[in-house]
Amino acid sequence: MTNLDIINAFGDAWASRDLERVMAFFAPGAVYHNIPMEPLTTDAAIRGFIGPFLGMSERIEFKVHHQVANGALVLNERTDYFDLKNGKKIEIRVMGIYELDGGRIVRWRDYFDMKELERQMA
Amino acid sequence: MTNLDIINAFGDAWASRDLERVMAFFAPGAVYHNIPMEPLTTDAAIRGFIGPFLGMSERIEFKVHHQVANGALVLNERTDYFDLKNGKKIEIRVMGIYELDGGRIVRWRDYFDMKELERQMA
Repeated sequence: MTNLDIINAFGDAWASRDLERVMAFFAPGAVYHNIPMEPLTTDAAIRGFIGPFLGMSERIEFKVHHQVANGALVLNERTDYFDLKNGKKIEIRVMGIYELDGGRIVRWRDYFDMKELERQMA
Repeated sequence: MTNLDIINAFGDAWASRDLERVMAFFAPGAVYHNIPMEPLTTDAAIRGFIGPFLGMSERIEFKVHHQVANGALVLNERTDYFDLKNGKKIEIRVMGIYELDGGRIVRWRDYFDMKELERQMA
């Protein structure tokens, strides 16, 4: 699998809403940073963020508009959809950058407008 | 010049704070979209946004951390610095995607957290 394939499979793992399947993509010591928030620097912190997001969603889709790999890096432009169990439909425009090592994610940074998320969560 | 070279030169044009030099990189009909704001879809709108930004700055730097090209597209991760004439120093974390045609920018989308900008402008 190329790094592009891996990031596509990572999106599929989110769509499955299976926390263990998602977590398996992270290398030990991985850092997941939603840029408007503090970086998540431990397995427990990443798990503690992603778990609730999966749990409150009944459908998740990372729709990739453009995606480019270069060496260890994958950069993409996406719209992320979260249809929540409470009926709200969240749609966030995102660019992400992933650094991989040995087929696993060591760094993931997502850039988006926090207000866009908050407006829809409110 | 490759598309990567052109986007680097575009950053240099911002650093020069010369509006005509910046505007020369846009193709006719270009769309410049700061994702948290409405897209700028005319030459006059783009000029009317960029001009004041250049005018109120005494130093501008687009510091590119990672940049990858693929066909017509360039994607990058940057920190943009604007040292304003009023003494404020603005620092914004950004990912951008540029679509080029014939060496000019036809689409530019920048992803960032509007609160990060507003906090520093306040």
